Amino acid sequence: ACYAAQAIGYLTSKPAVCLVVSGPGLLHTLGGLANATVNGWPVICIGGSSDTDQETRGAFQEWPQVESARLYCKHVSRAPTIAAIPSHVEKAVRTSLYGRPGAVYIDIPGNLVLSTYPKKEIQLVSTVPLYSPPSIPPEAVLQQAIARLREAKKPLVIIGKGSVWSERGPAQLRAFITATGLPFLPTPGGKGVVPDTHPLCIAPARSFALREADVILLVGARLNWILHFGQPPRFKPDVKILQIDVCAEEFHQNVQTTVPLLGDIGETVEALRGQLKGWHYEKNSAWLQALQQNAKKNRETVENFANNGSLPLNYYAAYKPIREFLEKNDVLVVNEGANTMDIGRTMMPNVEPRRRLDAGTFGTMGVGLGYAM
Amino acid sequence: ACYAAQAIGYLTSKPAVCLVVSGPGLLHTLGGLANATVNGWPVICIGGSSDTDQETRGAFQEWPQVESARLYCKHVSRAPTIAAIPSHVEKAVRTSLYGRPGAVYIDIPGNLVLSTYPKKEIQLVSTVPLYSPPSIPPEAVLQQAIARLREAKKPLVIIGKGSVWSERGPAQLRAFITATGLPFLPTPGGKGVVPDTHPLCIAPARSFALREADVILLVGARLNWILHFGQPPRFKPDVKILQIDVCAEEFHQNVQTTVPLLGDIGETVEALRGQLKGWHYEKNSAWLQALQQNAKKNRETVENFANNGSLPLNYYAAYKPIREFLEKNDVLVVNEGANTMDIGRTMMPNVEPRRRLDAGTFGTMGVGLGYAM
Amino acid sequence: ACYAAQAIGYLTSKPAVCLVVSGPGLLHTLGGLANATVNGWPVICIGGSSDTDQETRGAFQEWPQVESARLYCKHVSRAPTIAAIPSHVEKAVRTSLYGRPGAVYIDIPGNLVLSTYPKKEIQLVSTVPLYSPPSIPPEAVLQQAIARLREAKKPLVIIGKGSVWSERGPAQLRAFITATGLPFLPTPGGKGVVPDTHPLCIAPARSFALREADVILLVGARLNWILHFGQPPRFKPDVKILQIDVCAEEFHQNVQTTVPLLGDIGETVEALRGQLKGWHYEKNSAWLQALQQNAKKNRETVENFANNGSLPLNYYAAYKPIREFLEKNDVLVVNEGANTMDIGRTMMPNVEPRRRLDAGTFGTMGVGLGYAM
Amino acid sequence: ACYAAQAIGYLTSKPAVCLVVSGPGLLHTLGGLANATVNGWPVICIGGSSDTDQETRGAFQEWPQVESARLYCKHVSRAPTIAAIPSHVEKAVRTSLYGRPGAVYIDIPGNLVLSTYPKKEIQLVSTVPLYSPPSIPPEAVLQQAIARLREAKKPLVIIGKGSVWSERGPAQLRAFITATGLPFLPTPGGKGVVPDTHPLCIAPARSFALREADVILLVGARLNWILHFGQPPRFKPDVKILQIDVCAEEFHQNVQTTVPLLGDIGETVEALRGQLKGWHYEKNSAWLQALQQNAKKNRETVENFANNGSLPLNYYAAYKPIREFLEKNDVLVVNEGANTMDIGRTMMPNVEPRRRLDAGTFGTMGVGLGYAM
Repeated sequence: ACYAAQAIGYLTSKPAVCLVVSGPGLLHTLGGLANATVNGWPVICIGGSSDTDQETRGAFQEWPQVESARLYCKHVSRAPTIAAIPSHVEKAVRTSLYGRPGAVYIDIPGNLVLSTYPKKEIQLVSTVPLYSPPSIPPEAVLQQAIARLREAKKPLVIIGKGSVWSERGPAQLRAFITATGLPFLPTPGGKGVVPDTHPLCIAPARSFALREADVILLVGARLNWILHFGQPPRFKPDVKILQIDVCAEEFHQNVQTTVPLLGDIGETVEALRGQLKGWHYEKNSAWLQALQQNAKKNRETVENFANNGSLPLNYYAAYKPIREFLEKNDVLVVNEGANTMDIGRTMMPNVEPRRRLDAGTFGTMGVGLGYAM
Repeated sequence: ACYAAQAIGYLTSKPAVCLVVSGPGLLHTLGGLANATVNGWPVICIGGSSDTDQETRGAFQEWPQVESARLYCKHVSRAPTIAAIPSHVEKAVRTSLYGRPGAVYIDIPGNLVLSTYPKKEIQLVSTVPLYSPPSIPPEAVLQQAIARLREAKKPLVIIGKGSVWSERGPAQLRAFITATGLPFLPTPGGKGVVPDTHPLCIAPARSFALREADVILLVGARLNWILHFGQPPRFKPDVKILQIDVCAEEFHQNVQTTVPLLGDIGETVEALRGQLKGWHYEKNSAWLQALQQNAKKNRETVENFANNGSLPLNYYAAYKPIREFLEKNDVLVVNEGANTMDIGRTMMPNVEPRRRLDAGTFGTMGVGLGYAM
Repeated sequence: ACYAAQAIGYLTSKPAVCLVVSGPGLLHTLGGLANATVNGWPVICIGGSSDTDQETRGAFQEWPQVESARLYCKHVSRAPTIAAIPSHVEKAVRTSLYGRPGAVYIDIPGNLVLSTYPKKEIQLVSTVPLYSPPSIPPEAVLQQAIARLREAKKPLVIIGKGSVWSERGPAQLRAFITATGLPFLPTPGGKGVVPDTHPLCIAPARSFALREADVILLVGARLNWILHFGQPPRFKPDVKILQIDVCAEEFHQNVQTTVPLLGDIGETVEALRGQLKGWHYEKNSAWLQALQQNAKKNRETVENFANNGSLPLNYYAAYKPIREFLEKNDVLVVNEGANTMDIGRTMMPNVEPRRRLDAGTFGTMGVGLGYAM
Repeated sequence: ACYAAQAIGYLTSKPAVCLVVSGPGLLHTLGGLANATVNGWPVICIGGSSDTDQETRGAFQEWPQVESARLYCKHVSRAPTIAAIPSHVEKAVRTSLYGRPGAVYIDIPGNLVLSTYPKKEIQLVSTVPLYSPPSIPPEAVLQQAIARLREAKKPLVIIGKGSVWSERGPAQLRAFITATGLPFLPTPGGKGVVPDTHPLCIAPARSFALREADVILLVGARLNWILHFGQPPRFKPDVKILQIDVCAEEFHQNVQTTVPLLGDIGETVEALRGQLKGWHYEKNSAWLQALQQNAKKNRETVENFANNGSLPLNYYAAYKPIREFLEKNDVLVVNEGANTMDIGRTMMPNVEPRRRLDAGTFGTMGVGLGYAM
């Protein structure tokens, strides 16, 4: 239930609520809560707990639940009275969404569930605005980034899953890519923000692109294991990193950030576009041609596998009928995470990307069926 | 997997091992680990974790696993080197079993899994004896308990699930019941130690027995929610509690213990029997007759329900064919915990008791299909 | 030692390092670490710990130190090898300073302390820039704030201790106050950012100002207990809150924020000043006159106390000679926190404010000797 | 305050109570609580905390105190109502004392402190008996230990600090030593249980005794770093360990226990004495002579140091006047732990031992001034 709730948060940008019973009920959500917090997705868990007057006495499924949830959440609290519930809920919603999103746990002891309170005495609190207040880098910082982009020989935009966490982020990113003509690579969790079918998506040339790029605009993505910690030989040793992130602590992680662009991703991309004043990356550059050639080669290799029906069946051949089915039907695909680790890093460029739900391991979230990573 | 492993510990008195992957793998065991520790059952979880040199850098499924497991275990540790593994395993086995059993977690970082060590340099450690060293109360304390038992008008023995945690506990308890002729009541988790078919089992008269008993010999059971915290009106206000437990902190919990008998349950019961020197509770006492009369009445009520096939089918009628099947076949019954909460507290005295596995909520462990509680 | 180290972080905007021995050494820093994190001040604690191969065996002062420090820190880690130390230190410095500053703990096991590593093989990491990357609100948001300021009848600026956490924050705030002519109130921890001797400082009229203000520009301050949770009767029920903070989760806390201004405090104030284009609050407004009149009255009351030498001596009289001494000498005053709680909320407007170190209770940090709060 | 409170627990066998304010008040006790729990000493800490209705809102010194104390205590709880206080206190006292003693924390929120409750409705609970219920090993286990003692060529009794944790433990140990004539060695924390002036105390021959003994009766002591983990070359490789401990998990720690004697230390020693039926170790054995000869040699070495006034003064010479002062005056010595680590392992056999309070590091507790360890 908690994995489902956090997937809703990822897909809708609103926190879903997972309601659980005491003891094992809460403990079974910890994996989902951790996954949400690590991925920066909002989710709220509300758990019932023992009557407070039975605590320390051996109550039914007695457990220190707030404490149990702490390590996995951005915020945890226990409502002490019915009157306090509105403010605890407001804080839960707000904390789950604002800054870098994450998980929140609210504990409601059994005696509270069964008590009553005069409706007219309940002090309601204001509804929190859905989107975290935006910010953008100061102009001087934007100009530093622009100077690096303009002088780049082999620029690359990496679109991470953080890109969906701003009110107009995906639309602003699509406008930015189109306006600048920069080639881009989505991370597994960043797929669908700009479609894989976009002509500038060079996903099938992933390894080549990472290895050769001299300036990378990293948008809402982390240089963690998914991106090989940003290290050679997977990355160029002297690559310049222009990083857009909502979380200041994320800059300089594993690799020094050349220009840290702290702010809302959509607004920052928009501000960059404004300052670029119509600049467009060279349309028929050798870099773009090399990327597309590499992509074509990789695509053909995979298609050969996909068309090879010899036994034992290879992964690509198994996925081929699924892909064909997906092309004709409007379905939601749920895939098990470990499988996608095995062979998920392939490419199927003709399939319109859609959001994917998979089975909830921390790192493989969004490593989707049959898409290039 | 972890719930299964801890059930093996309960059923066999030896800790089973649950092997898990990093991150969510470990987090999904926390419910099982907590359940084991709360119930006093041994289990060992071994989890792989990130390579230590990738920690803090965003490793695949990186998580502070030892810390996560702490709250749910008697003992947690991370093996720092291959050479240290034997002593970490020995301590894990020992701690899971000795004193009050519980859960243990051992963390093995990925870099350790893939490294090698010269076999001849491994320093093996001694195998730990399976049973925790026994102890018994001093003779003076045994005599206090015996004086209370001899003067009791309405004695009752409550057999809890702790009774299986001594090398010869069940056999010694059966010998004690037979030798003294005392009526007994098993808790849900204590069922099967002495069979429900024993003529002195007054399980169907549970409520009556608890309410009327003036001296209770509590054997490896806790006066927690399952036993109504030992409080009136479910218990007599001035009932004398003679309590046998392996854990000193358990005495005086919720109700003052009249005579705390600290020790191995089997050895202590045996020592009591030795000091009783052939004493036997009055065979046709009014108390035994009242218990059996109350049991008979309750049994008939339930049988009437069980034979009533009108729709919607009542619980007892639904269980009747299951019971008949059980009587003729040697099967293992696995039942979901919440169902047993609904109506598990009934009686089916003709069924030979057997150990039950259910779905793992803290308190309802062992609330079996169709047995009086 | 840890309280001293975090005070250095507060006073210098650079994290000081507190070096401790194992076991109690680390445990004695937890108060200081918590204080730093709660106040948003940077500090780094480095602790030695037992040799890893003695863990679980009863080593000297063996303790799970990383786990102990977790609850009190933004980030904790254990260096697994000498080679990993540079990246652990870089992350520690960065995390202590970036975003909202706080405490970090690094654990160094004894076996690491005594081992060696070839100097030429140490992979050094880049030095992290001292100041967290700045951001400012988008122009549309700035305009909302400006509209509210322009229409305010009784505006008030509250300067909190967060105001020192930007590279040019204090200077930019002083320029903003001077340019706009808005009256301001420092919180205890925000004192000294703009001097108490500034003609627009209405600190002695604190209660009156909070109660009457219709628009408050809250700069790096939290509406927690120090500011009465922003609630009536201490605040006007319909007061508009324009809040500048580096931490998005802080908006709407206890009171709905009218305009949340997420960003670096100095840069945001500067951006506001730019957009205000020379606007100045009415110089001889009734509001300014009322504030100054109230301040004058309170100042006289206190001076009467200060000049009253009757026994037992009142607090103000005791502080008077200290104040006179301070006026003539360049000294650093260290005061015990609890005393300042007793009577710290008074005023001594003629004393040039200076930074204060006090004894480290969470809330009373910076409640200084003889200054109005 | 908390270190003092736990020292009282060690010296009096009754838990002292340490009362603290919220936030830093509680955090400053964590070192003392950990020290008490690690050493097995009882202490109770009662902390005030924020009003529950201000939690999550930024209350004065708001902190999750129960959770903070968890890792350092045997038991933690928060009293939810005034009515619940008696049972929380009873459980705190009981848990601090029973089984292996340790620290307990009780949290009292501010709103509870200021509320009232009708005195006549308070349900008082029974006072818990001061001593944990005793147990002894079964006779068969005692006989195994006795067989080992009788066949020992070089027997040694090690008296640890656990020896004081039974109602009549010290008296029963003194009677045992006198009756059997076995040489003994106190650990630093076990000093004073049997006086160092006893003719069978071979403390000055510590290293020799540990290295040569073939059968060791380990009484309430742990084979941790203080006893070199029981390993060669400090111990004989095939030494037989007969271990008396109240905690089953302690057996087989680092070295396999030959005969684990689980039980109250005093009662178990008494039971052993009863079963030994007047047996006495050979009075003029070569082993006793060798021990005394080694002790004499070491004593002379130290006395030479003590009488050597050359500069810089050696430790022994510095302690000599202190020793002489102690011999003539009834004083309580409080020493700093780290100093005793430096050179505490010396001998002053003529000084009547007395209990020592020192500065509270985990391992060095009770490493007293001038006594052999």
